[in-house]
Parts: sequence; C-alpha cells; structure tokens
Amino acid sequence: MEESKALGFHTILDLYECNKLMLNDAQSLERIMLEAAELAQATIIKSHFHQFSPQGVSGSVIISESHFNIHTWPEFSYAAIDLFTCNSEMSSELAVKFIVEKLESKRHNINLLQRGMDYRAFKK
Amino acid sequence: MEESKALGFHTILDLYECNKLMLNDAQSLERIMLEAAELAQATIIKSHFHQFSPQGVSGSVIISESHFNIHTWPEFSYAAIDLFTCNSEMSSELAVKFIVEKLESKRHNINLLQRGMDYRAFKK
Repeated sequence: MEESKALGFHTILDLYECNKLMLNDAQSLERIMLEAAELAQATIIKSHFHQFSPQGVSGSVIISESHFNIHTWPEFSYAAIDLFTCNSEMSSELAVKFIVEKLESKRHNINLLQRGMDYRAFKK
Repeated sequence: MEESKALGFHTILDLYECNKLMLNDAQSLERIMLEAAELAQATIIKSHFHQFSPQGVSGSVIISESHFNIHTWPEFSYAAIDLFTCNSEMSSELAVKFIVEKLESKRHNINLLQRGMDYRAFKK
C-alpha cells in the first residue's frame, strides 16, 4: 500500500515584537517577501502589496502553484504570515528564518500544516 | 484584566472529492471566490487567478486587510483553500458553505486558526 502524503505544505507564522516601522513599510515588506520567495527557490508569478491608512500592510506573492502572504498590525508589532508551497523540497525554512530576521521579531510561533493528506481516501 | 483576543481569523479548508472540471476552470473559480468574498461582506481590492498546464489553478482574492486563496489539484479532485479575515463578524461561514457547494465537494475538513492571540503578552 502506498503511503499517504501531503499535496501542499502550509507554514503558518505568527511574528510578535517586530520592528513597527518595518511593519508599516509596504515597499520594504514587498522586497522582503519577494527575496524570501527566491530563497525558497520559488517561481514568482506576481506580487501585490497594499498600504492601509492609518497603518498596516497586506501583501501577497503568488508563486508557481503556491503563495506567500503577509498582514501586519504595526500598532501591536505583529505580523501574520503564511507560506504555501507544493514542493516539499522547497526551502521554506530558509524563507522563514529570513523573514523573522528582517522583521526583527523577538518572539514567534511556527505551525506547519500538511494539506490534502486524505486525498487518497476515496480516490476514484 | 482585558481578555486576550485574536487579531486575525484564518479558516483552513481542505475540499476532497470535488468536481474535477470545476477545479480546472480558472474563470469559474475566480467568479466563485469573488462571490464568496462578497458573501463574507469583504471589500475586494484585487484578484489574480492562474491556470496551470496540464491542469490545476492557483488564485488569490485580496480583500481589505485579508485574503482568500485557492490551489487546486483536479487530478486528485482536491482543493486547498484558506480564508483570512480581520473581522470576527465577517461571515466566513457563509463563504465556506458557498464554496463547498459550488465545488461539489463530498468530503471536507475545516480548521479555524485564531491568529495573533499572544500580541498582548509583551505589549510595549
């Protein structure tokens, strides 16, 4: 019997105690997320970053069959990030380390979700 | 003492046994995800959907301070979806029900993650 495996790898990243100024700088955040995607050896299709008023940034980097997203709350020094990849060999770990360092997060939680684990259960 | 609460609400949705043809139709998927965002009373900023060859679709709907994403594997009748919102009153449940019905999923898992729960722990 073939072993069941995930189709997608979804890293959920909560970054606390970040650099507040950085969290409110859409251009810098876009550069960081694009560089993180390159570190993960991803093929970048498109990115879109949006600056909110009075503060906060939302951004998406769409990569081949995957995405990197960020939403920031500068007022709480917090960023919610998720990195979705379809390639287990993709170096999400490098991307995570890079983002944590660039946002100067002093405390963070990482949660790796394996997506689509049960796709074989009722295979037609 | 003020009760801690989440900053973001992240619904992780694994849809199995979907309609394969629907999962490979980027235009229909974009319409479904945009309508789901409207059902959740979201303010849509932008959407981007990409059709892969030979099959599969990735799509992002960027909504105010939030996102709706989908990645499909028609060959396995599977779709990985995540809906991120910053508004607890936002009707993600309606959006989830709508997407499940439109993709004709016969089996699905829903996981609600509360994001940024610990932002007050070291508030400066």
